[in-house]
Amino acid sequence: MKEKVVLAYSGGLDTTAIIPWLKENYDYEVICCCIDVGQESELDGLEERAKLSGAEKLYILDVVDEFCDDYIMPCVKANAIYENKYLLGTSMARPLIAQKLVEIARKENAVAICHGATGKGNDQVRFELGIKALAPDIKIIAPWRCNETWKMQSRQDEIDYCKEHGIDLPFSTDSSYSRDRNLWHISHEGLELEDPAQEPNYNHLLVLGVTPEEAPDEPEYVSMTFEKGVPTSVNGKEMKVSDIIRELNALGGKHGIGIIDIVENRVVGMKSRGVYETPGGTILMEAHQQLEELILDRATYTVKKEMGNKFADIVYEGKWFTPLREAVQAFVDSTQEYVTGEVKFKLYKGNIIKAGTTSPYSLYSETLASFTTGELYDHHDAEGFINLFGLPLKVRAMKMAEAQNK
Amino acid sequence: MKEKVVLAYSGGLDTTAIIPWLKENYDYEVICCCIDVGQESELDGLEERAKLSGAEKLYILDVVDEFCDDYIMPCVKANAIYENKYLLGTSMARPLIAQKLVEIARKENAVAICHGATGKGNDQVRFELGIKALAPDIKIIAPWRCNETWKMQSRQDEIDYCKEHGIDLPFSTDSSYSRDRNLWHISHEGLELEDPAQEPNYNHLLVLGVTPEEAPDEPEYVSMTFEKGVPTSVNGKEMKVSDIIRELNALGGKHGIGIIDIVENRVVGMKSRGVYETPGGTILMEAHQQLEELILDRATYTVKKEMGNKFADIVYEGKWFTPLREAVQAFVDSTQEYVTGEVKFKLYKGNIIKAGTTSPYSLYSETLASFTTGELYDHHDAEGFINLFGLPLKVRAMKMAEAQNK
Amino acid sequence: MKEKVVLAYSGGLDTTAIIPWLKENYDYEVICCCIDVGQESELDGLEERAKLSGAEKLYILDVVDEFCDDYIMPCVKANAIYENKYLLGTSMARPLIAQKLVEIARKENAVAICHGATGKGNDQVRFELGIKALAPDIKIIAPWRCNETWKMQSRQDEIDYCKEHGIDLPFSTDSSYSRDRNLWHISHEGLELEDPAQEPNYNHLLVLGVTPEEAPDEPEYVSMTFEKGVPTSVNGKEMKVSDIIRELNALGGKHGIGIIDIVENRVVGMKSRGVYETPGGTILMEAHQQLEELILDRATYTVKKEMGNKFADIVYEGKWFTPLREAVQAFVDSTQEYVTGEVKFKLYKGNIIKAGTTSPYSLYSETLASFTTGELYDHHDAEGFINLFGLPLKVRAMKMAEAQNK
Amino acid sequence: MKEKVVLAYSGGLDTTAIIPWLKENYDYEVICCCIDVGQESELDGLEERAKLSGAEKLYILDVVDEFCDDYIMPCVKANAIYENKYLLGTSMARPLIAQKLVEIARKENAVAICHGATGKGNDQVRFELGIKALAPDIKIIAPWRCNETWKMQSRQDEIDYCKEHGIDLPFSTDSSYSRDRNLWHISHEGLELEDPAQEPNYNHLLVLGVTPEEAPDEPEYVSMTFEKGVPTSVNGKEMKVSDIIRELNALGGKHGIGIIDIVENRVVGMKSRGVYETPGGTILMEAHQQLEELILDRATYTVKKEMGNKFADIVYEGKWFTPLREAVQAFVDSTQEYVTGEVKFKLYKGNIIKAGTTSPYSLYSETLASFTTGELYDHHDAEGFINLFGLPLKVRAMKMAEAQNK
Repeated sequence: MKEKVVLAYSGGLDTTAIIPWLKENYDYEVICCCIDVGQESELDGLEERAKLSGAEKLYILDVVDEFCDDYIMPCVKANAIYENKYLLGTSMARPLIAQKLVEIARKENAVAICHGATGKGNDQVRFELGIKALAPDIKIIAPWRCNETWKMQSRQDEIDYCKEHGIDLPFSTDSSYSRDRNLWHISHEGLELEDPAQEPNYNHLLVLGVTPEEAPDEPEYVSMTFEKGVPTSVNGKEMKVSDIIRELNALGGKHGIGIIDIVENRVVGMKSRGVYETPGGTILMEAHQQLEELILDRATYTVKKEMGNKFADIVYEGKWFTPLREAVQAFVDSTQEYVTGEVKFKLYKGNIIKAGTTSPYSLYSETLASFTTGELYDHHDAEGFINLFGLPLKVRAMKMAEAQNK
Repeated sequence: MKEKVVLAYSGGLDTTAIIPWLKENYDYEVICCCIDVGQESELDGLEERAKLSGAEKLYILDVVDEFCDDYIMPCVKANAIYENKYLLGTSMARPLIAQKLVEIARKENAVAICHGATGKGNDQVRFELGIKALAPDIKIIAPWRCNETWKMQSRQDEIDYCKEHGIDLPFSTDSSYSRDRNLWHISHEGLELEDPAQEPNYNHLLVLGVTPEEAPDEPEYVSMTFEKGVPTSVNGKEMKVSDIIRELNALGGKHGIGIIDIVENRVVGMKSRGVYETPGGTILMEAHQQLEELILDRATYTVKKEMGNKFADIVYEGKWFTPLREAVQAFVDSTQEYVTGEVKFKLYKGNIIKAGTTSPYSLYSETLASFTTGELYDHHDAEGFINLFGLPLKVRAMKMAEAQNK
Repeated sequence: MKEKVVLAYSGGLDTTAIIPWLKENYDYEVICCCIDVGQESELDGLEERAKLSGAEKLYILDVVDEFCDDYIMPCVKANAIYENKYLLGTSMARPLIAQKLVEIARKENAVAICHGATGKGNDQVRFELGIKALAPDIKIIAPWRCNETWKMQSRQDEIDYCKEHGIDLPFSTDSSYSRDRNLWHISHEGLELEDPAQEPNYNHLLVLGVTPEEAPDEPEYVSMTFEKGVPTSVNGKEMKVSDIIRELNALGGKHGIGIIDIVENRVVGMKSRGVYETPGGTILMEAHQQLEELILDRATYTVKKEMGNKFADIVYEGKWFTPLREAVQAFVDSTQEYVTGEVKFKLYKGNIIKAGTTSPYSLYSETLASFTTGELYDHHDAEGFINLFGLPLKVRAMKMAEAQNK
Repeated sequence: MKEKVVLAYSGGLDTTAIIPWLKENYDYEVICCCIDVGQESELDGLEERAKLSGAEKLYILDVVDEFCDDYIMPCVKANAIYENKYLLGTSMARPLIAQKLVEIARKENAVAICHGATGKGNDQVRFELGIKALAPDIKIIAPWRCNETWKMQSRQDEIDYCKEHGIDLPFSTDSSYSRDRNLWHISHEGLELEDPAQEPNYNHLLVLGVTPEEAPDEPEYVSMTFEKGVPTSVNGKEMKVSDIIRELNALGGKHGIGIIDIVENRVVGMKSRGVYETPGGTILMEAHQQLEELILDRATYTVKKEMGNKFADIVYEGKWFTPLREAVQAFVDSTQEYVTGEVKFKLYKGNIIKAGTTSPYSLYSETLASFTTGELYDHHDAEGFINLFGLPLKVRAMKMAEAQNK
């Protein structure tokens, strides 16, 4: 009996061409595995296509809810944003895909896992760290790094290679942006974006929504509720998280929300430039922060900001299945105990404009914030506070003056 | 000869009422001091008003350029933003004002400095820490904390008090938002803002610009150049920093840029809610970051983000004249050596949309970022990299499996 | 019926004198409360003394095990050390005492809590923050800050005051070091220590052990086991944590371990100098770290170090009952899952010398660490790793050379 | 004319064997380069040995003072300690060696640099990152990673290989610990140390000093002065830094100071175990910290600790020639402005016991630290301070109670 390899399969040209290549270069049965994280790919006919291309089997797994609950929500709670801009859309999906590939590999007793990520990107790191952490014994195959056997450099090469191996499928030769899509976002790289001096060709590029310029002239009010950091309803309708993100994607896409253009630092050591659309995610993270403003005290806020940055780095680097990710998540979860309440905001041409926030656990006190003296706050206290808060500065000034006069 | 007190004087009702109060409660000559940090207050007739109110002398100091070069720019270079939103407009002006008050106090041989900040706010802390650090021997008087002698609780009280002391000036009794303005920003507190559940009444509130809704329907392209982190021109016109901020204020105000609505944590322990307009500052900080993306390496970027957060906390807390502020600034300055180049962006209804960035010191390499293998990057290297980068995860997985099998 | 005050009572002169002072200045029933955290104070006759001094009631609570499990152990797991030296002995006991005072106040329906901490120290902050967090409605009385009614400045004053109020107890007038003791440590302040230029008079000062010079000439080997970060046995004997600390105190005291001399920065803004003895605690924390070396991966280790420093600051500042302390503790607890194993070390004249460590969850791999190539590690991988790890430096060098040649 | 390679040459067997290997596998002239960072190696006859082994030229560079001033001192000022224990002895020398190799390569117009570090250690990373940063165009040759051409696996293999190539030098076949020595430290790896369960065989292992047990029974007092963080004298004798380290090495070695046994996490992903002797360095860093206690304020101390940890990581990872190292160093240097004064301590059997510290810039104030109220400190202020410092806790407690009662 032949050994088996599990292939992360999308149905697209790149991963389709890998099937005959695997069979040519290794003597494996190929188990294709399509992990649905909300990429909205055409699943119809996927099975036939995989089989036609030489795969022995195809798994299709819908893991969208798991993606939302166990991968997206920890990032939202942490307010994890990479390099001030990137909402980690691709990064957060990779470990889940790795986990599912490993599960199928175990079930099928496969000896290897193969992915189609290129040799210059972050995704190879994320897939492979996930696999190493969950199945250190499984061999990893990355065709795009196999310079000696993987000779295809263009879509035409791949189509030709497929044809040579008896696979005649209607793939287009047009190359477009290099994209990655899931429920949370879509990323775009390549073409004019490769030159940071160039403005993105948004009209050509956008998939999930429109630019602020093309968004409606009328603003739209939205309300959301959260419980312990997790969104529970939009505009009064209770929904599970995945449906909330779908709803917010529609709203955000319509109003030109969440388009970013960034030059980021990859794990593998170079800068790259991309445009990301995260319409619903941008709204969700802003709304969550809007609520946290009322609830987190200053010290917690400050440290949580640092931990959120660390969480972002961990996720970006593919280190999901690590003790550090678990520990940081434990920190973050602890802070979410009282992040419960309602936020209102207005969407208008790329803007999310706050329109009121309430929470039973709000630490905001109107009597305290206003100018009057009350039971809770004696203005005299401020003098004592400032005297001690400023004591190190005052002592230092006196000591320095003394030292200089000696 | 009487002892002297230096009073931070704005010409408004609050600080005018302090003059007779000082004379009534202390036997001081009152030296008024109006520090112009770009607050656009009415300086005409200020001298007569101060004299009329009983002041012996009035200093008017234009320190706008010093404010821009020595206080604003360090914050911009540090990308110092308090609690993810607040660009520190008021915070960064206070230490400069404290410094000027001390300089005049020294020149006049004054024994005390008096300021009109309230007993619940951050500004008392910032003024007083500045004074303590620069002149630990000088007495500080904060009338609003003198519950026993300062009995005025409303504008009407203050007007009455002035009249009783022979000062009849045409102040209005209308109270509005509590505001602080300088070249960098204007803050608004009070009225409907005291309830975080309420939407701000923007039409009533805004001073420096319009809302995104009221901004022009046509976007406007802007270009800026920077040298070593400092802006040097806007749209091809070389200008000093203060003029650049003025220009950006006009552009930002017109396009609805830089309006934020925040519940923040004050130094003195309570939450407060404010709306800030920072039209030019928001553009300047975004533009600076846009350039840094090309120039800072990943490790520097990460640590600089932490240091920027610390810088923001330091400035917010009024700890400007401290060794820590100097040390963090030394860190930040060191990172700015190569932050030189040009950024383009588009302003449109509240949005700042990147439109291209270039720098002689850009670390972005198109050949490196693209998908091809080249001299600089061998795809094989990625395998070795991932193997070692992921080694701790793999070893851990193996060791844990071993431990569980024992 | 009179209102009641709960007094933190030690039986010493300071807190005894507070009883008549409270009765003189407030019309309260005084409920004394002696919280035993291992201070080894003379509890015999305490009840009579309290009653004799005018107290209506005395509670004596032994909370040593709670202290060990819920306050000491979180600090050990976090490796929480303040300013590189101080093992937080006093700091970690204060919130527990505050909590017990509040519990008794609630039980007794008391309206106030009184403590004998001075107006310059950290302990007032720690007691009061604890009380505010647990019982915001309860009035706090700190006699040493009541300049107008508390006139006693020396032990003689206090003895005289007691006598005037009919309390004639055999307190000595000798003043010695100011000390705080519990199961974890004893602190010493005052006398020659007030001048940092002076060497401590150790022979006079030490209570829990001897100096390294006076320790035995023979080293002593000790072994300890841990489970999930918690010590479970010493030299093969299983014991609860409090007994382990007692055992280690004896061992450490004998061998001159854990004496530190520090100038530290207090919360209230000044530097102070103290000597601390933490014989058992020093061993316990070192042993715990010795084990963690084998178990924590590099990334976790690095972030845990930062979190440990934060934990130390939080505890030092008396912010135990805060969401931040809980969140940091959740982080730390998560890292302790596999901190299980055995450590051996040798005690000798102030030194703790490692003598071998083992753990079922050790991440150390002898084959990996040695010089040979094996399955897990291909030397070629190092080349790829270094090439990408160093890529940003190389690209930067090339880009800078390019820029300079332009 | 042949192309040239610069070889980092120690005169030992490993680097000697590289000479014929280079000539056999590449057609290079070999320029040997021995960088003296205080390794106390036998330099006599080195030139003949190099020539005899086939080298065209030998450079011997004494860079000890540069090592002390530009590499060691920044680490001391930063208090850079890796993973709580390791004083970075090897790490800090590598970038300097890399720099000198590059300088000679430039002078000689060499096209390659060769080093003898193994494929599993940190040093390959440090050498190569240094070279990449300073000379990105130069080829790097690491024989120990050249599995196909470098076949030697033992000292005997190397001796045989040398003989085959006509080099008959009196090298011993005994293998001992793997060691690295310079002025700052000596490291030991291998043999019994490869098993963390084993106690080190100190009597066999130690080179720079004795164990605490074997140290003199008499303590020895030492005094040191510092200016701006840099040591200037020992026991009253002014010396340059390198001589101070030599003096402290003698003192520390004699008294059993600075021996550590650590399981550390290497850059390349595995744990390794080593013993380090840093007798003088340990004293120098402790003494520097002892002085800083008097001079740094709390906030600076806290952030400097974080920055010191970062500095340690940067140096450990070989990222010396990076903008981040420069920026962190700028931070640290800024904090050292007033680190001037005198420290006294006592060395005794592994202990460094503080014996008094003074500084003209000390922020310690005896009147402030003592229990009396004075001009600088009003006990009433503490009440105000605590009330505001604890305000967030109190408000939170009230709000939570309110929320629960709803």
